[in-house]
Amino acid sequence: MWKVVWATLLLLATVCAQRGYAKETKGAPKVGHVSVVIVGGTGDLAKKYLWQGFFHLYANQVSSGYSFSFYGGGLLPKDKATPFLFEALKGVVCPRELSVERCALVKEQFLKLAEYWQLKTSEDYQALGKHLTEQLTQEGIVEAGRLFYLSVPAFAYADIAERINNSCRPTDGAWLRVVLEKPFGHDFSSAQLLSTQLGTSLKDEEMYRIDHYLGKQVVSKILPFRRENSKHLDPIWNKHHIERVEIVLKETLDARGRIPFYDQYGVIRDVIQNHLTEVMTLLTMGLPANLSDVKEVLRNKLKIFSALQHLDRNCATIGQYQNYNLEVQEELNKTKEYYSLTPTFAGIMVHIDIAQYEKMPIILTSGKMLDERLGYARILFKNDIFCVQSHNSVHCKPKQIVFYFGHGTLQYPAILVSKNLFKPDLMDTEWKEITEHKDVSVLGMPISDYYVLTPTVQREAYAELISHIFQGRKDSFISTENLLASWGFWTPLLHGLAKTSPRLYPGGADNGNMLDFKLLGREVTFANEAVVMIPQDHMGGSGAESFQVMQGKYRSAEMVSAWPEELIVRLAADLQASAEKAVREGGRFHLALSGGSSPLALFQRLARHHYSFPWRDTHVWMVDERCVPLTELDSNFRTLHDHLLQHVKMPYFNIHPMPVQMNQRLCVEEDSGALLYERDINQLVNASSFHFVLLGVGYDGHTASLFPGSKLDAHGDSLVALTESPAKPHQRMSLTLRAINQAQKVGVLVMGKSKHELVTQLSRVKDNPNKWPITGIRPTSGRLVWYIDYDALLG
Amino acid sequence: MWKVVWATLLLLATVCAQRGYAKETKGAPKVGHVSVVIVGGTGDLAKKYLWQGFFHLYANQVSSGYSFSFYGGGLLPKDKATPFLFEALKGVVCPRELSVERCALVKEQFLKLAEYWQLKTSEDYQALGKHLTEQLTQEGIVEAGRLFYLSVPAFAYADIAERINNSCRPTDGAWLRVVLEKPFGHDFSSAQLLSTQLGTSLKDEEMYRIDHYLGKQVVSKILPFRRENSKHLDPIWNKHHIERVEIVLKETLDARGRIPFYDQYGVIRDVIQNHLTEVMTLLTMGLPANLSDVKEVLRNKLKIFSALQHLDRNCATIGQYQNYNLEVQEELNKTKEYYSLTPTFAGIMVHIDIAQYEKMPIILTSGKMLDERLGYARILFKNDIFCVQSHNSVHCKPKQIVFYFGHGTLQYPAILVSKNLFKPDLMDTEWKEITEHKDVSVLGMPISDYYVLTPTVQREAYAELISHIFQGRKDSFISTENLLASWGFWTPLLHGLAKTSPRLYPGGADNGNMLDFKLLGREVTFANEAVVMIPQDHMGGSGAESFQVMQGKYRSAEMVSAWPEELIVRLAADLQASAEKAVREGGRFHLALSGGSSPLALFQRLARHHYSFPWRDTHVWMVDERCVPLTELDSNFRTLHDHLLQHVKMPYFNIHPMPVQMNQRLCVEEDSGALLYERDINQLVNASSFHFVLLGVGYDGHTASLFPGSKLDAHGDSLVALTESPAKPHQRMSLTLRAINQAQKVGVLVMGKSKHELVTQLSRVKDNPNKWPITGIRPTSGRLVWYIDYDALLG
Repeated sequence: MWKVVWATLLLLATVCAQRGYAKETKGAPKVGHVSVVIVGGTGDLAKKYLWQGFFHLYANQVSSGYSFSFYGGGLLPKDKATPFLFEALKGVVCPRELSVERCALVKEQFLKLAEYWQLKTSEDYQALGKHLTEQLTQEGIVEAGRLFYLSVPAFAYADIAERINNSCRPTDGAWLRVVLEKPFGHDFSSAQLLSTQLGTSLKDEEMYRIDHYLGKQVVSKILPFRRENSKHLDPIWNKHHIERVEIVLKETLDARGRIPFYDQYGVIRDVIQNHLTEVMTLLTMGLPANLSDVKEVLRNKLKIFSALQHLDRNCATIGQYQNYNLEVQEELNKTKEYYSLTPTFAGIMVHIDIAQYEKMPIILTSGKMLDERLGYARILFKNDIFCVQSHNSVHCKPKQIVFYFGHGTLQYPAILVSKNLFKPDLMDTEWKEITEHKDVSVLGMPISDYYVLTPTVQREAYAELISHIFQGRKDSFISTENLLASWGFWTPLLHGLAKTSPRLYPGGADNGNMLDFKLLGREVTFANEAVVMIPQDHMGGSGAESFQVMQGKYRSAEMVSAWPEELIVRLAADLQASAEKAVREGGRFHLALSGGSSPLALFQRLARHHYSFPWRDTHVWMVDERCVPLTELDSNFRTLHDHLLQHVKMPYFNIHPMPVQMNQRLCVEEDSGALLYERDINQLVNASSFHFVLLGVGYDGHTASLFPGSKLDAHGDSLVALTESPAKPHQRMSLTLRAINQAQKVGVLVMGKSKHELVTQLSRVKDNPNKWPITGIRPTSGRLVWYIDYDALLG
Repeated sequence: MWKVVWATLLLLATVCAQRGYAKETKGAPKVGHVSVVIVGGTGDLAKKYLWQGFFHLYANQVSSGYSFSFYGGGLLPKDKATPFLFEALKGVVCPRELSVERCALVKEQFLKLAEYWQLKTSEDYQALGKHLTEQLTQEGIVEAGRLFYLSVPAFAYADIAERINNSCRPTDGAWLRVVLEKPFGHDFSSAQLLSTQLGTSLKDEEMYRIDHYLGKQVVSKILPFRRENSKHLDPIWNKHHIERVEIVLKETLDARGRIPFYDQYGVIRDVIQNHLTEVMTLLTMGLPANLSDVKEVLRNKLKIFSALQHLDRNCATIGQYQNYNLEVQEELNKTKEYYSLTPTFAGIMVHIDIAQYEKMPIILTSGKMLDERLGYARILFKNDIFCVQSHNSVHCKPKQIVFYFGHGTLQYPAILVSKNLFKPDLMDTEWKEITEHKDVSVLGMPISDYYVLTPTVQREAYAELISHIFQGRKDSFISTENLLASWGFWTPLLHGLAKTSPRLYPGGADNGNMLDFKLLGREVTFANEAVVMIPQDHMGGSGAESFQVMQGKYRSAEMVSAWPEELIVRLAADLQASAEKAVREGGRFHLALSGGSSPLALFQRLARHHYSFPWRDTHVWMVDERCVPLTELDSNFRTLHDHLLQHVKMPYFNIHPMPVQMNQRLCVEEDSGALLYERDINQLVNASSFHFVLLGVGYDGHTASLFPGSKLDAHGDSLVALTESPAKPHQRMSLTLRAINQAQKVGVLVMGKSKHELVTQLSRVKDNPNKWPITGIRPTSGRLVWYIDYDALLG
């Protein structure tokens, strides 16, 4: 420990405090000794970034009263590994501010403070823990904290955390900070498992999950930039002004040498779930009142996560560079028949379902083996200028803000604001405006058309983050809730894509336009026809013919059958055709819809794809309702509302929920709710004949809320009745067979393998409505069409 | 008449039937003699276009069994004017298809068939009528019809029509067609008056109102193009895919020499109300099943007119070229102090309020003294491609369809479809695709990036239309309904702009970016700060200081006062601030709104400008309601619905109309509607205290539906009560004083000069709720703010 004290004393008088972050942290940090342990201290990341980062920390903090010792940990014995460690340490470079002489001095001290420590077994950790504590006692100095940086494969995290917890906790009152590198799991459940495992050894505030994007100067300036330019941004930071947001990370490298890791992960897990998603939340989250309030920042981020629209595989395009599979076969010792489906490119469109951003496309895209190395986030605003003359004037050009992370044509990090938007405020002395540039073009515009802000001094992301760890600034790290929210969002897409074959691309400039993609409503497809595809038979998929729609007969009525997605597409199209016909002929379309889960996909399709559906002239009625308040989640109307009505523009008066709640009570006979609904139908629907009634059918053969064994004849001439269900909630309100059979068209939607037995059974039984209510559906003069998916039809 | 017969016989055997339109007309047209009379036959239009058009008609029809005679009419005596006529006639050019020899022959005959006729007095028309009929009798030939082309100032129309009706009607069974040139009125009422006047002399089917744009080949191909490419267009011809529509007519000429006419009209009446509006309807109307069904076409056009959003002066920018006023002073003999406000430039944004086009900007713009001569309609589609690499590929470029009327860089009429959209079908042999072009750029893209269709033979618009008149094809002309619908749309804007000073512009390239304009929601403003303005004192307008908002006290409560528009802006902003605060603090905003006309402007402002209002978390309640069904136009809720709720996205459950209709009857005490509403308030609104209650006040001092002399104390602790109004409908439901005074903020909006007396009176009276119910508004612990506009405050 003598060397620690010596080095500190030597430097104390002469090195000035640089960058006073310490004063920003809450409470009084305890000044004293800090032990830094890099587990994996001779690995690539440590060599390239970590030792450099800790050296900067040391150089900056050595005069602030702290003392340090540094340990590079690894599996090899000390004698073998020490030379490797010092090889890595030798390369560290001083901060620019230091003179040559000071640099030599500081570096010499740093090398003296560092040593190698074998960390293979529990005993090794015990020995380290003992050593750390003994040194403090020997030297009689106070401990400030211990920092463990785990630069090792993720599978080792839980064990190491346990050993640290068992043997290496600091002395009383000092902090423990354990830094983890991604990957933090592979999907939601593995991330959750890992969190739980770590949670048994470490407290949440002791864990620092690194996403090095958050250490990039441009990324960490997103929120301050938004705050300090809020005067300009507030009016335009919404769907009405933003055309789209693009968050892009292009790489020229391949995955060679990293295949055993990469092939398990792929591009979405590698950089999109973490880096690009973090940038997206910073761009879209509500601005916290206090930017350094970790809890408020987290809360606002989580609001974005909770409002992200569910992604299915139609929201993404994926690719794989052509050589990748060969690399996989080589590095994983696979045969020539082996095909990996791991994507090395992805283009994804995300939507945030809050009013401010509704329907505003957010594009996340990244790939290996592309034409250039470049990372940026671009907010492209809508073109709201009509230029009568002089189209080359700056205000006729695209309006955009670009957060340029680095590389590309510019080669330095910057925030660019096109001059036709506003002149951004210079945020602080750490940023400066550049007014003289070489003549380059950034995202379609010459750089002279932008205001360009850049950091006064460029800092490496790891060095930034290491300094934040030292200061305990948790806002630059990924909390457990944030991590799980992100995995919760990405996991369904990852699972959905698991069996999708990526488009092969040659790599580099040869990719041409192969990877460009097209945004279609909520979906994304490659813009060009496929040129190279992995043959279908390697994929175990089914051919194109499986997407056909089949027409036939079922129970002597019309039947349309197809795979689920195609069936919904067809049913939605049929509904729109009926609607258009009815509106053309009589100005109104009366549609009665059922509850249950089957129509959900239909509602979503109608809401998202049927732009020209004549909603204004459509009246929506309920086929049946549960006797619960309409706002309850299990109300049929609530489901319909949340998945369809909320997303289309329909007059309030055209929406007809069943009056199951009257006089603040549910379905009481004497409140005459059924009669009231019947009167509304009589009054508004021509001849009380709906244009389209959509039904489902239950395992027991019930349809609407007409259940087996419930004397349907008793409804007489009524159009609406109170009924009883064998399942909870028992009380229901339902259209009667009479009301349904009066309709001009009745569709029965049956989906899923679990309905196969029922479909088979129904195909054999005769009409017997009291046993099988669905068999009572025989439109008097209208059409009956069964929509049955192949799962239900073929089992 | 011998010359008619001779000419016909001579040509009959040799001239082939060209362009067989006759076969397209319905029924069997009566073949025979046609007399053509151009009133104003020696004028500019006749010289330039009309005689040429009639010559083509003659050349095309002479072999089809028709015979012709042509009369050029005018005010001068025959001997003086005949040389002028033959000067004009000599210049006519043969259709290209004719050989040189045939051309000479046909032209010679045409000249022989034409003569001058003085048409000044009623007697002149009588003489002409007599002459026409006598000739038919003398020659013993059947009459097909008489065609009068009125190429004279519009003020003369009514008289001439009357004389034609009195003296020049054709013989039994023959048609009369009277062709009129714009202007057809000056605004809605003058157009209606002119129509009525003409209607006393002519039947609707006898009037042919010419808009020569409808004779342009590209314009008349808009509907056929849309039909024949509907496979490609149907999915994208809507707001989801169209970024915007631009209809542009740029001129380089000034108005010199036409000032006496032009200064009365200006650019909107001159070319936008007619030409550009017609193009707009052709682009947006529903495609008729039968394109030549005149009635269906008209019906679909009228649907568009009826769905056009009302324009106010904020929807337009206007300009005037700098020299114009000097020209006005000269040509109209005005002093140097005279300033004309007639616009020679206008940029206008139009919206169509049907689901297909909602919020899609349609830009109509035209001006004199611009940098180039050019007319086009452009449909610019949204950018739905993300280009990962190779940004210069055609599919990364804008997608657009351009209907290019002529001139500009291209110099010929064409329909251009960018190659990243689709390859258009070649419609018929009258159109061809051009694949080799000179290297020009059209609207930002090189011509090689377009598919280019152009007419096989270019035809002049007047020649086209003259042939259509001959064929009785009324679909190429402006019907009375169409005309009045168009004036009905434009007149409010024209009146609104009547006192607006146009921005002055120098003309030509010097205009630079001065005329560029910006689209802001529904409004349009010049994109650059004004450079030259007509001084305010010439305009009689009020200065900038008049737009300030004043804060003060009224009846010992807070008061905000401003001019009406500013007041609404402020109130809307206050509402949003309250909403944001409430949502931030408790997750919900409970707002109670009043009926009446004052809040209309507020509703519209909220719907159109407050994009980020937290509607999803807002509950809307009614302050009071009339006992009428909610769907009736005089229901307060219906007003609120149509002007606000319909335009924002609010969950169904957050909307709380008052239950004035229960059990199919209105406001019956025993139905307990008031109690039900009170219970809903108690259940949903925290402490039954609304966050914001907006009230109005009536001339009699009533507020909500609490009327003078109605024993307000009787409401006791109720929050909602049935009340009686002295005005119809008498029955009302209303929040009580108690409910209102419990609110956290109460705003009272008072607007208009007619309220000035009331405002003065109320400023003096003491609280006396039974006499002046509004004085009972004294929030228990909340704030009361009066929003009073200057009209009401200052009178």
